[in-house]
Amino acid sequence: MNGHRIPEATVNRLPVYLRVLAEASGSSPTISSELLAEKAGVNAAQVRKDLSHLGSYGTRGVGYEVGYLMHQISRRLGVDTELKVVIVGAGNLGQALATYGGFASRGFQVVATFDSDPDKVGTRVGVTKVQPVTSMPETLRELRVDIGVVTTPASAAQSTVDLLVSGGVSCILNFAPTTVAVPGHVALRQVDLGVELQILSFYRQGDISPVAVGE
Amino acid sequence: MNGHRIPEATVNRLPVYLRVLAEASGSSPTISSELLAEKAGVNAAQVRKDLSHLGSYGTRGVGYEVGYLMHQISRRLGVDTELKVVIVGAGNLGQALATYGGFASRGFQVVATFDSDPDKVGTRVGVTKVQPVTSMPETLRELRVDIGVVTTPASAAQSTVDLLVSGGVSCILNFAPTTVAVPGHVALRQVDLGVELQILSFYRQGDISPVAVGE
Repeated sequence: MNGHRIPEATVNRLPVYLRVLAEASGSSPTISSELLAEKAGVNAAQVRKDLSHLGSYGTRGVGYEVGYLMHQISRRLGVDTELKVVIVGAGNLGQALATYGGFASRGFQVVATFDSDPDKVGTRVGVTKVQPVTSMPETLRELRVDIGVVTTPASAAQSTVDLLVSGGVSCILNFAPTTVAVPGHVALRQVDLGVELQILSFYRQGDISPVAVGE
Repeated sequence: MNGHRIPEATVNRLPVYLRVLAEASGSSPTISSELLAEKAGVNAAQVRKDLSHLGSYGTRGVGYEVGYLMHQISRRLGVDTELKVVIVGAGNLGQALATYGGFASRGFQVVATFDSDPDKVGTRVGVTKVQPVTSMPETLRELRVDIGVVTTPASAAQSTVDLLVSGGVSCILNFAPTTVAVPGHVALRQVDLGVELQILSFYRQGDISPVAVGE
C-alpha cells in the first residue's frame, strides 16, 4: 500500500519536517527547501531528495506549499487519523508521557495506562485512570489500540511486550533499558535514554558532530 | 584523538552492544558475534564490522571476551569516566530523567536540576534540589558540567540551550519538541517523543520493519 520503499533515514526525517512545517504554517503559505533544511538541521539537497520520495518536488523560486506538504507527509506517515496509545508503567516516565503535549498535538491519544503496583491503580494519570496490568488483555481488545508504550522496569519489559502483542498491538515503543523480542509483524522502536547520553558522549570527544535530527 | 572515524550508524549501535554485554557479563566470560547480534537486534556480520572499527576482532570459535569488549566500547564512547549531567525543566519528564536508573548505572551523574517556576524551586528531584534558572551560569561554572538535558516547554528551549552553551556545556540532549540551534563545537541530540511515535506509525502501515536499535 505504500508504493515504493522510502529509505529508513528519510522516514526518520519526515516527522522532523512535519514539525518544522507546523511551526511555519502560521507565518507563510510556502517554504523554501533552504529554510525547511535549516530549521530541520539538514541541507537543502537532502530535503529535496527526501521529499521527492513522496512525489513532492516544490516549485522553483517558490518552494513547497506548507499545507499541502503537511498533508502529504502526514498521510505517508499514517498519522492523518488519530491513533490510540496505551502506556504500561505509570511511574515518572509513564506519567510524563501520558501528559506529553507533543502526543496530542500530533494525533496520538493516550486511551489507557496500566501498572502492576496496587498503589498506583486507580490514580489519575493524564486523562486516564491507571488500570491493573491484569486488565490489559480485555482493555486492549475493547479499545483496538494502535500503539503500546512500555515504561516498565527492564525486568518487566518482555512480559509487557508479550501482553501487548497478544492483545493485538502491532506497534511498540520501548523505553525500558533492555532489548525485547517481537514477532516479525510487529514494529518496534527502542528508546533508551542512557544510550542517547552515551552517543552524545562519543561526539563530546571532538569527533564529527552528529546531525541534529533523526538519522 | 579518536583515530579513524567511526560511521554514525556504528556509534549508535555501540551503546546497544554495551547494554547487551552488561546483561551477559554475569553468565559467561565470552560471547559469540551471533549471540551479541541476536540480542542487539542486528545480524552477526554487522556486529563484526562494527567492532572491527574498534580494532576488536574476536577469536574464531570463541567470540569476544565480554569484559575486555565492554572496556573497549566504554573507552571509545568516552563513558569510562563519570560524566556530570544537569537537567533543565523539572516537570514530569525532568523528574523522570533525574531518577532514571539507566543514567546512574552507565556512569551519568545528575548533579543539578533547574526550573523557572518558583513553586518548583527548592523541591527535591532525585538527589538534587531544584535551583532557579537564574542560578544556571554560576552553578554550571562551579560544577564543570558535561551534559545538559533540556526538558523545558518548546518556547523556552532555545534560551535554555543558549544558557547551557554559555555556561560551557558542550553536549546537549534536547527533549523539547522544537528544533534548537547550537554553535559548531557543541554536540546536540534531539529526542522528540512525538517523532518516535510518528516513525512507528509509518512502519505500522506494513512497510519494512525498522531495525530495533540505534537510530
